[in-house]
This record gives sequence, structure tokens and C-alpha cells, in this order.
Amino acid sequence: MSDSPRKLRLGAFIMATGHHVAAWRHPDADADAGHNIDHYRGLAQTAERGLFDLVFVADSPGGWDGDRDPEIRSRVSHSAHFEPVTLWSALSQVTSNIGFVATASTTYEDPYLLARKFASLDHISKGRAAWNVVTTGADVSRNFSIAGHPAHANRYERAEEVVDLVLDLWDSYEDDALIRDKQSGIFLDPGKVHRVDHHGQFFDVAGPLNVARSPQGRPVVVQAGASEAGRNLAARTAEVIFTANQTLADGQEFYSDIKGRLTKHGRRPEQLLIMPGLFPVLGGTKAEAKQNYEFIQSLIHPAIAWGILKQYYVGVDLSGYSLDDKAPPLPADTELNKSRLKLVSDLASTGLTLRQLYLSLATARGHRTVVGTPEQIADALVEWFANGAADGFNIMPPVLPTGLTDFVDQVVPILQKRGLFRTEYEGATLRENLGLERPINRFVARASQQQRSA
Amino acid sequence: MSDSPRKLRLGAFIMATGHHVAAWRHPDADADAGHNIDHYRGLAQTAERGLFDLVFVADSPGGWDGDRDPEIRSRVSHSAHFEPVTLWSALSQVTSNIGFVATASTTYEDPYLLARKFASLDHISKGRAAWNVVTTGADVSRNFSIAGHPAHANRYERAEEVVDLVLDLWDSYEDDALIRDKQSGIFLDPGKVHRVDHHGQFFDVAGPLNVARSPQGRPVVVQAGASEAGRNLAARTAEVIFTANQTLADGQEFYSDIKGRLTKHGRRPEQLLIMPGLFPVLGGTKAEAKQNYEFIQSLIHPAIAWGILKQYYVGVDLSGYSLDDKAPPLPADTELNKSRLKLVSDLASTGLTLRQLYLSLATARGHRTVVGTPEQIADALVEWFANGAADGFNIMPPVLPTGLTDFVDQVVPILQKRGLFRTEYEGATLRENLGLERPINRFVARASQQQRSA
Repeated sequence: MSDSPRKLRLGAFIMATGHHVAAWRHPDADADAGHNIDHYRGLAQTAERGLFDLVFVADSPGGWDGDRDPEIRSRVSHSAHFEPVTLWSALSQVTSNIGFVATASTTYEDPYLLARKFASLDHISKGRAAWNVVTTGADVSRNFSIAGHPAHANRYERAEEVVDLVLDLWDSYEDDALIRDKQSGIFLDPGKVHRVDHHGQFFDVAGPLNVARSPQGRPVVVQAGASEAGRNLAARTAEVIFTANQTLADGQEFYSDIKGRLTKHGRRPEQLLIMPGLFPVLGGTKAEAKQNYEFIQSLIHPAIAWGILKQYYVGVDLSGYSLDDKAPPLPADTELNKSRLKLVSDLASTGLTLRQLYLSLATARGHRTVVGTPEQIADALVEWFANGAADGFNIMPPVLPTGLTDFVDQVVPILQKRGLFRTEYEGATLRENLGLERPINRFVARASQQQRSA
Repeated sequence: MSDSPRKLRLGAFIMATGHHVAAWRHPDADADAGHNIDHYRGLAQTAERGLFDLVFVADSPGGWDGDRDPEIRSRVSHSAHFEPVTLWSALSQVTSNIGFVATASTTYEDPYLLARKFASLDHISKGRAAWNVVTTGADVSRNFSIAGHPAHANRYERAEEVVDLVLDLWDSYEDDALIRDKQSGIFLDPGKVHRVDHHGQFFDVAGPLNVARSPQGRPVVVQAGASEAGRNLAARTAEVIFTANQTLADGQEFYSDIKGRLTKHGRRPEQLLIMPGLFPVLGGTKAEAKQNYEFIQSLIHPAIAWGILKQYYVGVDLSGYSLDDKAPPLPADTELNKSRLKLVSDLASTGLTLRQLYLSLATARGHRTVVGTPEQIADALVEWFANGAADGFNIMPPVLPTGLTDFVDQVVPILQKRGLFRTEYEGATLRENLGLERPINRFVARASQQQRSA
């Protein structure tokens, strides 16, 4: 496979101090990372030095749970951090090629304001913006003057509507709507500016958006949901999927399922890139990598371990268990993130102890963990890439900034040597680097469709 | 007055191509300014070179009116531009001292998300963020799934509530809530993270905000409303007011009225800075300045002139009038921006023709216009600064970027020579440069108040 012309994609999934739950305690970690713009600047520049396609941050509009045991709360590091679009906009000015994937909620954000900030980011970054569409699994309704967290099905109905609405808003202006002819005094062509006149189940929005069409036509649409509803939404609208799979077989099932759903929507397989998460623990030798892994695992406080388990065992009394007892079955259904719950449930059913279960969750929150040398990490990527489980990977460094620097310095050159990864950026925009087409304006497409059918 | 230790403040009020309605047609203008990040970067860096306190953009979440005559719409340049926080966040990384004032609406934005993006900007800019609180005068309800634009009084009731809620959210974390002790594994002190538990007329928000307290304690609060309701809101909560006054007497009335209202809220006069807008038309000689003024006025198309007039003559039939007729009285009351309407009404009542009225509105939208040499512009600033009408000025360049560059190169040195303006930045944060205190955390203040009264 090493001389295949197909290139794999790399994303840097950034979590403030790193993806491991105890990352912030590691000597290499910037403990103040979540509020330190210089930390994030370094990461974006490192990812760009490594020719990554994109950097990505997850998000929830309200991440702190006041009802948790203070003993746990005092030891959790991910409760507060920057709003993603504000963060990436800043870093767009100190980078030139890397793409910026920001998470925003279809359940809790207003579609007009959401469309506007992403369109602005696409202009400001000169074509490097992407929206990670999430429905927000955890209940943050307490921050939004509404009676309660919408149920899973309702969240996805709303997401379907919001994505369509936002896509229309992004196309309010045709590419050549702004004329700006000083001599004649004609600034724009009103016939090329479109109201969206959206009247849906959840929203009534007239538009147009007050931002012109952006360099990429529109920001790249990214998704991560893996439930039935999530897969349908992704197959219809997403251009990149971040997914969590543990085994090659699961990765292949997900990959072929999603690619198979595309035709129903008139889309081709290459119009949606699938990028599973990968949590790489590097070492000069396999033994050193294992040591590094054990060291960071040793930094997890027992209170945190129980806290992690209780997030999944909703309504289950764990007080009679010790960490060395076999993990009991997980509750069948909650309003939590469904795909994540299934994954954890599958893990629990393999006979792990509660300690083994929380250690697995603590590291990569259900994502694939690979512990090894740079060659072994590269092999792990290639195995999935070459066998129908991935178009690329969302790299989840255990500890930041070193986990990303090490990957860039040690793994990227191996992938390049094997001819599987770029040695320079193909283009200036995220779409160009991902090999995604610049979409035709939806209003133009509809008009020419009407013309054809007339 | 020239050796007074009191220094005047300068803001650069940025409008894409400039404040004049025909600015974009001027040979000096960047016609694509509204969507050109390099244009804005140049402006922010020029303002910083001139040691300005701040740059400022106005905003409305939806600025385009599809019902207007296409002849007018095709000639209007300000219909689309970047979302302000996204814009300023980008420019915070290519500047180091200038403050960033972004406009956001209490009527149309969600308070939690609003608080979060501004808190993020304050961290990302290392203490240079400010929020210009607006209630949004023009009806943009069509973009927000609501039945109609809330009335003026309702908008201000809501604004009072939103400002308090946002101030609480910004103080969710005490300054020393984040401990980050790697050795003990204690990341934060849960006792120093506060829910806001806001239950008001319009909003129910539990909090806490998921951003730590920011470098300035909180972003600087700015306002521009001049109605009775606007003055009250400003006197209670604002730290800077941008205002529009035409005459020294009006400026003095506003200044002393606002400063007088502060004591009722337990505040001192120096805790609220008043910065009237000023539209400077520069020339090497008075005659040259007048020529420059006439040249840009000549760029206004008649269709635009009538369009401007109709914005104020709501419900009045102007079809029988020519531009050389005397301006009829304006309608007494609409749901428009009240303070702006009064100002225009006062102008109309002085016996201007419709042409004179629109020319006055086209230039500075009711702000003070000064046409002259750099010395004369400096004199105009000093007159108000020294006579109780201003603590500083919001400079509104007619055409950008040249209008700002000329002011920085020609007027700032005169103000410095007279000892009225800084020769280097006093501090790293906007508060330090404006001479505003870093506020005590509201939760800490309440707790110590309770202790004292116990």
C-alpha cells in the first residue's frame, strides 16, 4: 500500500492539557492550558509544522456539574476553557494553512448567530473554517432559560433543521454579489442576495445572513455522532466525521455503513472523510511506551476513577463494589450520548474489572489507544487506512504540548516516507487540503434546477 | 489647560470603508473592507501605533433591508461585515496594547453565550476586551424566530437584566479558584466557583460560566444609548459611553447629566468615561479640508440621499419634495433609536433644506463634524475636553484606511505636544490604559458585605 496515491488526513484533536484525564498533572503539561492562548498558539503552529489538515476542539456551553462530590470536582481539569470560534479566530492570524474545526451546538446556539460567526471565521482565516455540528449530549439547559434538556430524538430533529438553515444562510450572497464599482457607484447586485425565508418546525428565519459568501463557499461541515440519527445526519450533510472505534472490525463496519448511506443522498464516497480518533502513547521502545502509559495512569486519583465510572453507570448503585470487582452491565438506555454508551457497554461486557474499565475510559474516553514506538503507531494508522476503516485520523495526544510535538517529529516523517502523507500543503484552504470540492451556492443550484425542469 | 495632567482618551470607531456613506467610492478606500481581514489588521495596528486606547465596531445581527428600493440597495455598502468578537479576537494576536470594543445585542443574543465569548476574548487578548451593550434599534426579529421587535421600553428592561446576569457570569470563578497543584492533584477550589442562579423576568440561568475570571476581572462595559432609559442603564453599569453630540452645550448637558447620575449608584465620576464621536475631515489648509469634504459629499448618489432621509421620515410622504425644499418636521415618536431621532429632529428644525439635512446625516450620522487643519481638529477636541463635555473622543474617520492614518500622523503628535495625550501606553490591559479599576469579584463583594452586616 505504501506507494498508493491516496493520502491520509490528520487532525489534531486538542484538549487543553491533553486527552488523558490526569494529563494536567504530568510534568510535561501546561497546567493552565485551558486559559492560556500562548499554549494554544504553540499547538496550532506545531500541527501546521507537521502539515496536519486541521486542529479541532470539542465543546459544551456549560461543562461544570455543581452536584458532583467536591472531592471529585476539585480534581477535574476540563471544566472551563475558551469559546471555540473566538479561540480559532485568534490563531488564524498566526498560522497560514492549518484548518480550524470549532464545535457549536444545534441545541443551544442560535442558528443565525452561529452561521454568522463561522462565516466570519472562514473569511478571517481565508478559507480554513469548519463547524463540528453537535447536539450537545449533556444537559446544559440550566444555562439557557428552558425547561429541560431536549430528548435525543428531538435534538436530532432540530439538528437536521439547523444544518439546512445554516447552509442556506451561508449562501445568502452569491459569490459575485458584491460588485464594488467605485465609478458607477454600484456596490452590490440585489438580485444575487437571497433571503432564506426558512419556516421550519423549530425556527423562522428570514435572512439573508449579513456576511458575504466565504472563501470556501462555506465552512466544512464536520460531525461526530454515531447513533442511527447521527449517522443519517452525517450521511446527508457532513463532509468529515470524527468517530470513536476500538477495533478494526468496528471501524470497518462504521466506515462501510456511512459510505453506503451516501448514495441515498446523491453523494459520492469521497465527499465524506472518516477520521477515527487515535490516542497515541509514544516511546523509543515498546517497553518505554508502556512505561510512559503506566506513569500517566498512575496520576489518576481514585476519586476521579469513581467519578468517571458514575458518568456511565447512571442510576446504578456502585457503593458495594471495589475497583477490582468485575464491571457490572451498564444501564440499557439513557439520554446520554448513545454511541459512546454502547462503546463503553461493549467494553464492560468483555469481563474487565472496574479498574480496567476506568483506565480504558480515562485514557481516550473510548477511542482507540495505541502504545508503542513511532513505527508501531504508524503501522496502526496504516492498518486502518489500508483496510477500509479510515480516510485519516484525529490524533488525541495524551499530554499537551509534548504529545503533539512528539507525533509531529516522530510519526509524521514515517508516514511521509511511506508515501502516505503530504510533504507540503496542497492548497490554501481547508477544502483544498482535504480534497473536498467548493460547493455550488444552494440558491444558484436551485435556480438552475428549476430552469432545467421548466 | 495644556499642562493639565489629565489625559484624553482616544477610540478609533471603525466602519468598514469609513463613516461617510459614500466612503467606499473614494479613491483611498478599500472597497472590499467589510470582508477583508488585512484591511482591519492594518487599522488596528495603525490605531496602536497612534497609542489609541481602543478600536470599536458597531453591529446589528442582520443589517439588510430587502424591502428597500433595489436602486438604493445596490448602492449601500454597509450591509455585511464580520461578527465583531470573531474579528477582534483575530486582531488581538497581531497587536499588544490596543483595546477591542465589540458590540453585542442584549435583545438578540443569548446572555450565557455572550458572556462566554467576551470572557474568552478578554483572556485571548490578555485583558483588552470590552463589550458595547446595545439593545438593537432596528428590527431584526425576522432572523430570530420571534413574533416582532420588542418595544424600546421592553428592550431596556431586558438590557438591565442581561447586563447584571453577564456581570455575574463573568465572576463565576474567583481570581484564585484555579489552583492547579500537580503534586496534590487539586485543580480547583470548588468553594470559589459560583453558580449565578439567576431567575429574572426574561432569563433563568444557573451557571457558572465555563470560563475562568479574565485578566481585567471582566471586560470593560461600554454603552451608547442616550435616551432616558439608556442614560440610566449607563449610569448604573457602563464604564465608557460613546455619545453623539453636535454642540458644546449639548455635550456639556450630556456630560454633566450622566456624571450626576453616578452618585445615585454609589459611583464616582472617574468611573465612567464619556467619549463623544468626532468625524474629522483633514486638510493641509482649511481650504483644502473643505475641498476634501466637498469631494466626498459629491460621491453621494441622489438615490442614497432619499434613502437616508426616508430612514428618519418614517410614515411621511416625501414624494412632493425636492432636495432643495426646506426639511419638514420629523415624526414625533417611532420605535427607532430615540436619541438619534431627537438629534435629527433638532437638526431639521433649524431650517435646513432636505439636501443640507441628508448631507449632515451622510457624513457623520448625527455626530460632530470638524473640517480643518490638524491644529484645528486638535483645538476642537481640546475645546470639549477642557470644558466639561468629554473625557476623550471616538474618532470616526470619513474614509478608511487613510482617515485613520492621517489622524495618527497629523493630529496625535499635536495632542502629545500639548501634554494632553500619552506618549506611551500606561499598561498592558485596556482598564490600565483607561485608568479604570479592576473590579472586585461580585460574589466576593457580596460575601464580605454579608459578613459586615452580620
